[in-house]
Amino acid sequence: MPKGTITILGLGAMGSAVADRLRATGHDTTVWNRTPAKTAPHRAAGSNVASTVAEAANASDLVLVVLLDHASVREHLEPVAADLKHRVVVNLTTTTPNEARSTAAWAAAHGITYLDGAIMAVPDMIGRPGARLLYSGDENAYAIARPVLETLGTAEYEGTDAGLASLKDMALLAAMYQMFGGVLHAIAMMRTVGAAPTDTARDLVDWLGALIPIAADFGADVEKREYAAPPGQSVDFTRPALASIITASREQGISADFLEPVKKHLDELAATGRGGAEWASVVEQLTIE
Amino acid sequence: MPKGTITILGLGAMGSAVADRLRATGHDTTVWNRTPAKTAPHRAAGSNVASTVAEAANASDLVLVVLLDHASVREHLEPVAADLKHRVVVNLTTTTPNEARSTAAWAAAHGITYLDGAIMAVPDMIGRPGARLLYSGDENAYAIARPVLETLGTAEYEGTDAGLASLKDMALLAAMYQMFGGVLHAIAMMRTVGAAPTDTARDLVDWLGALIPIAADFGADVEKREYAAPPGQSVDFTRPALASIITASREQGISADFLEPVKKHLDELAATGRGGAEWASVVEQLTIE
Ligand SMILES: NC(=O)c1ccc[n+]([C@@H]2O[C@H](COP(=O)([O-])OP(=O)(O)OC[C@H]3O[C@@H](n4cnc5c(N)ncnc54)[C@H](OP(=O)(O)O)[C@@H]3O)[C@@H](O)[C@H]2O)c1
Ligand SMILES: NC(=O)c1ccc[n+]([C@@H]2O[C@H](COP(=O)([O-])OP(=O)(O)OC[C@H]3O[C@@H](n4cnc5c(N)ncnc54)[C@H](OP(=O)(O)O)[C@@H]3O)[C@@H](O)[C@H]2O)c1
Repeated sequence: MPKGTITILGLGAMGSAVADRLRATGHDTTVWNRTPAKTAPHRAAGSNVASTVAEAANASDLVLVVLLDHASVREHLEPVAADLKHRVVVNLTTTTPNEARSTAAWAAAHGITYLDGAIMAVPDMIGRPGARLLYSGDENAYAIARPVLETLGTAEYEGTDAGLASLKDMALLAAMYQMFGGVLHAIAMMRTVGAAPTDTARDLVDWLGALIPIAADFGADVEKREYAAPPGQSVDFTRPALASIITASREQGISADFLEPVKKHLDELAATGRGGAEWASVVEQLTIE
Repeated sequence: MPKGTITILGLGAMGSAVADRLRATGHDTTVWNRTPAKTAPHRAAGSNVASTVAEAANASDLVLVVLLDHASVREHLEPVAADLKHRVVVNLTTTTPNEARSTAAWAAAHGITYLDGAIMAVPDMIGRPGARLLYSGDENAYAIARPVLETLGTAEYEGTDAGLASLKDMALLAAMYQMFGGVLHAIAMMRTVGAAPTDTARDLVDWLGALIPIAADFGADVEKREYAAPPGQSVDFTRPALASIITASREQGISADFLEPVKKHLDELAATGRGGAEWASVVEQLTIE
């Protein structure tokens, strides 16, 4: 557990939730925000307020960064590299994996102990059940910061490659947006015949909820790269099924844009003699040559 | 309950499962298949075998059709329209809604009582818990056939528009393929850093399973067409998030093809002044003008 105060850079919705939670769990906190007005409620609640990033950096051995994006992080950390030397910086700002790797390399060059984080939660969930935060980068930084980080939500360390937390974050979000894209596509189709979106949604919650465990079977097949198709699961079976879904969507006046790329990649499999394989083998088409 | 024998046209994987189940529940069955060899096990198990479609049609007041597709159904039913007059035809073959509507119109013109069906199950599930079959079209046909249909799986009547069962089938399948597309995208991303697909899949089952109930909130918002965005749910918030996911995918050497159409439609919303709205309002972009 780091002694003394914990610095939080950034008091937007998420940074504020982090500062609130740290105070609520008995930590001494030092906060900084670009727009000073946002520091007032934190000062009132007991936080120390720093008027510059350098002051905030020098106050603490553990600096949590919760800014908007990669650019804002680099803009404010680079000028205070010397002030951050030997300190632990945990960057909770959402970035791409390569941005995280770049900041980790920059930190290493300046003797800063760097851990990258990804928050799988909304601000309201911080410190509550269900909040999950992913970390990757310097193992030592994780060991030092862990007791503090665990007050924010379940902490998962993904590995020393600083890009791993972001990558997993983005992979999970990619799947989420596609699932909800499918939900909205289905709602749009059913609305054309007067079906209430709430009814379609209720149906989808049951339907997708019952099907999602099949993802484990897909995972096992991808792992072995063994794509023997069970009945109704081959590329050749799935292509006309998708063609019918796309036709049905359009005939009802609904775009099938979200689904067409799946069909396109299945067509590629069929065109290269892999029509008999399980349709989940489309995962191999996603690797850019 | 129709008296006498029940006719099944088509003894592929699904037609055979239907015939097996009807015999197992004590029904007298008459079967026909284009390739006669497939009738042998059914004859041995006690079914009557018809050598022509006309003979099969004339044997029964209830004709279940389980052929490959719309074209094969029309090819074999049209020549025997007179034989089917006044009989109940339940077409379980997968077709688009408009194909179902077309066959319903054809049937009506020939005095045939027509019900269209969609099977939300694989052959192994027929007659077992979890098998769900959707029906739409002639209400009378449904009332007559229902006791037989309920032996196949949970029966749901969607309405008199013969296209409704297919439409719901395709809407649910559209959502399913997009969800699994997202699963495969996530597995592909994580595989680039050596994550085992089975581990990623396990994570996704939990993650998506926990998130899917949010579909009900989306349904409620779409129903009211009220797209006030909760924090982190606006188009403006979601666009850079998707841009990062797309960048992260590509930097790892993975195509973001499945996700790009979602981003494209969010960009349209932002470009037309709707960036502050909930991202689920993208559903309104799916209506083809
Ligand atoms: N909110 C969520 O649901 C959620 C969930 C997971 C992850 N995250 C991530 O958490 C991070 C913070 O999100 P948030 O919800 O707190 O966003 P927010 O409410 O919009 O706050 C943004 C914060 O970044 C600061 N900022 C923006 N541009 C800056 C710049 N150029 N220089 C210095 N500071 C700058 C803002 O300072 P000012 O007050 O001066 O504008 C503010 O403190 C983001 O990376 C976000 O992706 C958020
Ligand atoms: N299998 C599933 O998981 C599943 C799930 C839901 C819905 N369905 C639907 O159920 C229907 C049947 O599927 P299935 O799994 O039984 O397919 P299947 O095993 O490939 O069998 C196809 C059946 O259609 C017949 N057929 C094909 N073309 C024909 C033609 N031109 N004229 C006459 N008969 C023809 C075949 O006869 P021959 O023996 O002479 O080739 C065979 O009886 C399809 O519409 C399918 O979409 C299947």
